Amino acid sequence: MTPERLYLFDTTLRDGQQTQGVQFSAAEKAQIAQALDRLGVDYIEGGWPGANPTDSDFFATAPQTRARMTAFGMTKRVGRSAANDDVLAAVLNAGTGTVCLVGKTHTFHVATALGVTLDENREAIAETFRHLRALGREALFDAEHFFDGYKADPAYALSCLRAALDEGARWVVLCDTNGGTLPADVGRIVAEVIAAGIPGDRLGIHCHDDTGNAVANSLAAVNAGCRQIQGTLNGLGERCGNANLTSLIPTLLLKEPYASRFQTGVTPEALKGLLKTSRMLDDILNRVPLRSAPYIGASAFAHKAGLHASAILKDPTTYEHIDPATVGNARVIPMSNQAGQSNLRARLASAGIEVDPKDPRLARILEVVKEHEDQGYAYDGAQASFELVARRELGLCPAFFEVKRYRVTVERRKNKYDRMISLSEAVVVVKIGGRKAMSVSDSMDGTGQDRGPVNALAKALAKDLGPYQACIDDMKLVDFKVRITQGGTEAVTRVIIDSEDGQGRRWSTVGVSPNIVDASFEALLDAIQWKLIRDIGQPVEAVAP
Amino acid sequence: MTPERLYLFDTTLRDGQQTQGVQFSAAEKAQIAQALDRLGVDYIEGGWPGANPTDSDFFATAPQTRARMTAFGMTKRVGRSAANDDVLAAVLNAGTGTVCLVGKTHTFHVATALGVTLDENREAIAETFRHLRALGREALFDAEHFFDGYKADPAYALSCLRAALDEGARWVVLCDTNGGTLPADVGRIVAEVIAAGIPGDRLGIHCHDDTGNAVANSLAAVNAGCRQIQGTLNGLGERCGNANLTSLIPTLLLKEPYASRFQTGVTPEALKGLLKTSRMLDDILNRVPLRSAPYIGASAFAHKAGLHASAILKDPTTYEHIDPATVGNARVIPMSNQAGQSNLRARLASAGIEVDPKDPRLARILEVVKEHEDQGYAYDGAQASFELVARRELGLCPAFFEVKRYRVTVERRKNKYDRMISLSEAVVVVKIGGRKAMSVSDSMDGTGQDRGPVNALAKALAKDLGPYQACIDDMKLVDFKVRITQGGTEAVTRVIIDSEDGQGRRWSTVGVSPNIVDASFEALLDAIQWKLIRDIGQPVEAVAP
Repeated sequence: MTPERLYLFDTTLRDGQQTQGVQFSAAEKAQIAQALDRLGVDYIEGGWPGANPTDSDFFATAPQTRARMTAFGMTKRVGRSAANDDVLAAVLNAGTGTVCLVGKTHTFHVATALGVTLDENREAIAETFRHLRALGREALFDAEHFFDGYKADPAYALSCLRAALDEGARWVVLCDTNGGTLPADVGRIVAEVIAAGIPGDRLGIHCHDDTGNAVANSLAAVNAGCRQIQGTLNGLGERCGNANLTSLIPTLLLKEPYASRFQTGVTPEALKGLLKTSRMLDDILNRVPLRSAPYIGASAFAHKAGLHASAILKDPTTYEHIDPATVGNARVIPMSNQAGQSNLRARLASAGIEVDPKDPRLARILEVVKEHEDQGYAYDGAQASFELVARRELGLCPAFFEVKRYRVTVERRKNKYDRMISLSEAVVVVKIGGRKAMSVSDSMDGTGQDRGPVNALAKALAKDLGPYQACIDDMKLVDFKVRITQGGTEAVTRVIIDSEDGQGRRWSTVGVSPNIVDASFEALLDAIQWKLIRDIGQPVEAVAP
Repeated sequence: MTPERLYLFDTTLRDGQQTQGVQFSAAEKAQIAQALDRLGVDYIEGGWPGANPTDSDFFATAPQTRARMTAFGMTKRVGRSAANDDVLAAVLNAGTGTVCLVGKTHTFHVATALGVTLDENREAIAETFRHLRALGREALFDAEHFFDGYKADPAYALSCLRAALDEGARWVVLCDTNGGTLPADVGRIVAEVIAAGIPGDRLGIHCHDDTGNAVANSLAAVNAGCRQIQGTLNGLGERCGNANLTSLIPTLLLKEPYASRFQTGVTPEALKGLLKTSRMLDDILNRVPLRSAPYIGASAFAHKAGLHASAILKDPTTYEHIDPATVGNARVIPMSNQAGQSNLRARLASAGIEVDPKDPRLARILEVVKEHEDQGYAYDGAQASFELVARRELGLCPAFFEVKRYRVTVERRKNKYDRMISLSEAVVVVKIGGRKAMSVSDSMDGTGQDRGPVNALAKALAKDLGPYQACIDDMKLVDFKVRITQGGTEAVTRVIIDSEDGQGRRWSTVGVSPNIVDASFEALLDAIQWKLIRDIGQPVEAVAP
C-alpha cells in the first residue's frame, strides 16, 4: 500500500503567540520558522500582518523556506467588497503564496458576534475566496467553532465549507475553537462531513487542549479522513494551547497505523532533532521545559520504579514504548529510596560504568546515598550528582581542580543618582594543577541589572579553569530550584541546578546546606565536574597534593 | 435513564510518587488523602507498604476516609505460597480493606522479566486472589502491560484476567503500563475484552501519558464499557505521568455524554474545590502550577485574542466551553472589570479595610497588582503583602523605619583547624525617627553552624528597631519558599516567607528580585511592616524626611 500524504500546518507563530505571556520578536519568529522548516512541516503560519506590527515586520523579512509561508487573517467583512476590505488587504499585502482566513460557520456566532444574516456571512466567505483565487493565492478557510456550529445547524455549517471550497479554497479547516469537543464527537462529525461530500484530502483539523484532548482529537480526525493537522510546537496557544505537534509528530512517524498508512514531510533524521527544536523554543521564551512532556520531556524515559528499572536492564522494550534516541531523547534511571541495586547498576551502566553485580561497593554506594538523603539531598531529580556520588565510591571521579575559597558580597545601597540598587560580587580561588587562579565577577546582566550572588559566583568560577575552560564555555544554567527541607533536625536548603550545553545535553545536580549560597555552589561544582568527566574524562595535568 | 456508577481510583500517592523528583512524607500523604476524600474519589491508593518506609508509616497512621484506602503490591512470586510471600505479607499487614496487586499478562514479560512459565504465572495470580478472598479483602488486579500483552497473545492475556476474577477480584484493571497505546486501540481492545465475557463493571483502566493521550485513552475505555478510571491529581506519575484526574473529573461531570450517562462520587460542590486541590498539591511539591492546564490552569480562561475578548463581553459562551466557576477557576480578561473590583473589596474587608465601591483607587490597586504580577509577584500565597500593596495606594501604610543600606557576605574558606567552613555576616543600617542604627549579625546557630545570608540579614534587621523592638521580638520565620519564575522577559526569584508570632498568628509575604538575597529582604521587610501595623498601628515618632 502506498502511504497517503498527511500535511502538517504549524501555527506556533500565530496561534502560539496567543499564549498568555508570549510575544515573539520578528527575529525570534525567523529563528523558529527556520527550525520548523528543518523539522519538515508543510505550512508555517507566520502571523496576522496588519494586526500586529511585529508580524508585518516578520513577513517583510521572512526567511526563505521549503515550507509554505502562510499569512493569517479573516474573511472580508459584510458591507464592503473583498477588494475594499483594508484588513484583508493588509493580509494579502504580505505577499505570501498561501493565505489562511478565519470565518464563522456557527449560526449563534454569526448572530451574536457579527450581527449579520446567515446568507450575508456565507456570501462573504464565497466572495473572499473568489477574490483569492483571482489573485492566484493558495487559500485555506479556518472554519471557526465548526464542531459547535455543526451540532447546532449541520446544514448551515456545511454550506459555509462548500462556499469556500466551491470558490477554490485548497483546504477547509475544522476548528474546535473553544476546545470543548471530545474525541468521539470529533471522529463522528468529521466522518459525517466527508459522507456529506467534502473530500478528506481537502480537510484540516485545528484543536485546542481545553479538555486535555487536543492530540487525541487530531488523531480522531485523521482516523476519520482529515489529511491536514494544525498545531504548535510544545502545544503553545490561546488558553490551554493548541494540539501539540511535538507529541503528534512522533506518533505519526513511529506508531501504527500511522507509520505505515501515511507519509509526512518529516524524515526520521529530522525527527532526531525534535528535542532540540522543542528546547530552542523554550529557550526563546525563557521557559523551563516541561519534564513530563511526551517523547521529549526530561522524564519521558525516566524509570523510577524499582521493578521497571530491573526489567529495563534485561530488555529496554519492557518499559519503553519507543527508542528514546528516535526523538533525540535518552533513558534515565533515577535513584530514590524505592530503588535497589538493579536500579543502581542500570544507572551506572547508562553512564558507561559497568559494575559486577557482586561488587560490595554497590551496597556502599546505596548506603552513602541513603546518608545523603537523610541530610536533605534528593537524587532522583539530580542524576548527575548521583553519578558523581557513585564515581567517588568507585574511584572514578578525577579531581580536575580544587576550590580553595570563595567570598560573595550582596549589597543594597544608594547609587550615585541616589537610587536604591543592589549589587553582588564574587571572588573564587581555584587550584588547577600547580597553579592558583583567582577570579572575580559581579552579577550584572547586559542591562546592568544585578542577577544575584549565585550568578556572580557561577560567573567567577567559570572564568578561568585553565585547560578546561573550552569544555565549560558552552555550559548554561537553565533552571534553579530551591526547596527548604529537613536535614537531620534542622531545616536546610536544597538547591537543584539544571545545566545544558551546546549539544542540547541537559543534566541536574544538587547541593544541600543551611546556607543557600553554599548549597548552590555545591550544585554548580557538581555540574562542572560532570561535564568535565563526560567531555574530557581525565585531568590534563595532575592536581598538586 | 438512571445514570450508571463510574468509579474513580486515585493513585497520586502511589504511581504519582513514581514521578521523578517526588517523594512525599507520611504527613504530606495524609494531607493529600484528606483532600482527595473531600473531592470525592472512590479509592485512594496510598503506596506500597513494605517497599518504602514512608509508605508503611503512612498506612500505620492513615486518616479515616470515606474513600476506600488501598494498599498496593504485587501478586505472589512463583515458588512460594501466597501465605509465605513476605512481600505480599507486608502489603496485607497494612490492614487496608482494599488491596491492589499488579501482575503480568504479557507473555513476553512473563518470559523476559519473570523467567517463569505462562502456567506458573497464571496460577500465581489465581492463588494470590484466592488468598485475598479467604482474608475477606476487596481485591483489584492491575494487569500490567495488558494492551501490549493482548496484541501479542489475546487468549493468554484474557486467561490471566479470568484467573483473578474467578478467584473473587472485584476489579481487573487494564494497564497501559508503557503508555504507548493509542485511543482507537484502547477502545477496540476494551470492547473485545467485554465481548469475550468480562463485564465492564468489573473493568478498570490505567493509562499513562507517553503519547499525550492518557485522558483520551481513559475516555475511550469508558466509551467501550470500563467502569473504573485510575489516575492522579495534576497527572503526576512515572515518566510522562498518569491520566490526569484534574482534567478527567470536570469532563465526566460537565460534558456529554458523560454528564447524563454516569454518576461519580464527586459532587458539583466538591468540583468547585478542584482548582484549590490542584494548587495544594503543587504547593506541597513546590512546583509552579502549569498555566495551560485544562480547566484549572491560570490561563485556561484567559482570552488574549482581541476578537475573543470582545465577543466574551457580549456573551461568555462565545469563547468558553464551560463556566470557569464550576471548577473554582476564573475568567481573565486583559482589563480590570466589575468582578475584579468586588473581589478586591472583599479581600480588603477581610483585612479590616472598608472601601467605597465607587472609590477610583480600587481600579488603581488592581493595576498595581497586575504590574507586580507581570514582574513575578504572586499574591495568592502572600496575603499580607497584598494587603500592604492596597494600603500603600490607600495611604494606610505608615513608615515606621527606613532601611538605608545593607551588606551581606558569604565566605567559604578553611578555618584554623584546616577544615572548610562557610560563614555569613550582615550589616544593616536603619533610620528610625531621627536616629540611625547600624546593626551587625553573623548567621551562626547554637551549634556554630552557618545558617546562611538570609538568616544573618534577618537577625541584623531585627536587632535594633528602637521603639518597635518589643513588638517584633516574638516574630519567628517559620517557612521560606523560593521559586524561579518569569518576571517580564527574565527569570527572577520569588521568595515567600511565612512568619509567626507569640500569639500564634501566621502571615505570608512575598519579595521578587533576580537576586535571591534581595528578594528575601523585601519579604522580610513586608513581614515586619505587617506586624507593626497590626500591633502598633502608627509610628511612635515621625520618620525624619
